Amino acid sequence: MKTPMEARAAFRAGLATSTSGVADGYAQANLVAVPRAHAYDMLLFAQRNPKPCPLLDVTEPGAWTTELAYADLRTDLPRYRVWRGGKLVGEPTSVLELWRDDLVAFLFGCSFTFEAALVAAGIGLRHVEQGTTVPMFRTNRACRPAGALSGPVVVTMRPVPAHLVADAVRVTAAVPAVHGAPVHIGSPEALGVDLAKPDYGDPAEVRPGEVPVFWACGVTPQAALAGSGIPFAITHAPGHMFVTDVPESTYRVA
Amino acid sequence: MKTPMEARAAFRAGLATSTSGVADGYAQANLVAVPRAHAYDMLLFAQRNPKPCPLLDVTEPGAWTTELAYADLRTDLPRYRVWRGGKLVGEPTSVLELWRDDLVAFLFGCSFTFEAALVAAGIGLRHVEQGTTVPMFRTNRACRPAGALSGPVVVTMRPVPAHLVADAVRVTAAVPAVHGAPVHIGSPEALGVDLAKPDYGDPAEVRPGEVPVFWACGVTPQAALAGSGIPFAITHAPGHMFVTDVPESTYRVA
Repeated sequence: MKTPMEARAAFRAGLATSTSGVADGYAQANLVAVPRAHAYDMLLFAQRNPKPCPLLDVTEPGAWTTELAYADLRTDLPRYRVWRGGKLVGEPTSVLELWRDDLVAFLFGCSFTFEAALVAAGIGLRHVEQGTTVPMFRTNRACRPAGALSGPVVVTMRPVPAHLVADAVRVTAAVPAVHGAPVHIGSPEALGVDLAKPDYGDPAEVRPGEVPVFWACGVTPQAALAGSGIPFAITHAPGHMFVTDVPESTYRVA
Repeated sequence: MKTPMEARAAFRAGLATSTSGVADGYAQANLVAVPRAHAYDMLLFAQRNPKPCPLLDVTEPGAWTTELAYADLRTDLPRYRVWRGGKLVGEPTSVLELWRDDLVAFLFGCSFTFEAALVAAGIGLRHVEQGTTVPMFRTNRACRPAGALSGPVVVTMRPVPAHLVADAVRVTAAVPAVHGAPVHIGSPEALGVDLAKPDYGDPAEVRPGEVPVFWACGVTPQAALAGSGIPFAITHAPGHMFVTDVPESTYRVA
């Protein structure tokens, strides 16, 4: 699964793994699809919360294609989540039969995109080393609400050796479209987070000499969906992203 | 009119001048207000065309306040434009009586915001020197459409001495939220533009040794409104901006 096309073909065939480390060098994206009647709220939520919700593309109602990849959004992610009335009702590996004519898909940047650049800077990835899904946490920071949508900022956490934290900031600040610089460094308690109990994904060990570094996460709009009363939605399953054909360098600034 | 509050008070009292050079150091904004039923198209148009349409705020339906200033959006701009069925039907100095309960106001960054920084970098402003409104042009570049909205990218033009063009790029690239770096430098014919005939504002003389420099302009969404069939809209009149309380430095990056 070196190329995005190979990865998507494997997921389309039924493979259901985390996409961290898959097709290094290509952007990955979070998916949230809601009916057109609720799309304004989602778009406004993204506009008001650009750090956790950096929009890469918005599709036309009913479309299952995107300019980000030669792909079918209904089948080419490893795992989905299906929401009815703000409740999670299933985690299928395809939503071919569930896609509707009025669904608008929002694709948000994902921090997996900059992981290859972190590794290139000498910053290892504990969740890859462990073979687990990156830990994600609902924080005590509220998003700015938009219509029916409100909720906490969700973050990913990666342990970084103390002498490399500044490098982690520098490397990721260069790609704001995939969450950019960390939102919080160290002090998980100030963020209302218990490192042993991620809300999504798996715990990642923080070793002596390492600092937990937190990046905004594209599960944030999904957390806002829960309890929103929006009647129907489809999202990716946390950690199981849409692998695009867009080189990571496309989103690098300065 | 040194402070935003003084400027808005003067406009509220009826003064109807261009806001270039007003309340230097504070962000200025373009206004487009459309009924809630058409707000998704406008928000998506902004998302798809971030260079001409950098969103600073989106209001709740019917609200006439914004987090950008202690102000009344219905009275505090020097001049408005009123649109019915995509046709311009009036240019009043107040829209107090016309504001509707379903209007959503979009506030887009304006290049007037970085003019003080250009002057500080030794780059004079011909339209200020001439006492005219900055020239604006509809170019031969199309925006990416969104729903009912499509149209050309509109640009402002400022003549810059050839040896200062790189400085003009550097200074303005630092503030992407108010259009950022130029979209085109020199060669007006390649942009489909006749410098003697601006579509909005007044011609600005380009002298020997100067290069015409073009920045994306927040009149772009207004140009997309014309002919869109959107039944009702209120915008600012070109050059007659909303002066905010937000210091320009707030929008400066790196």
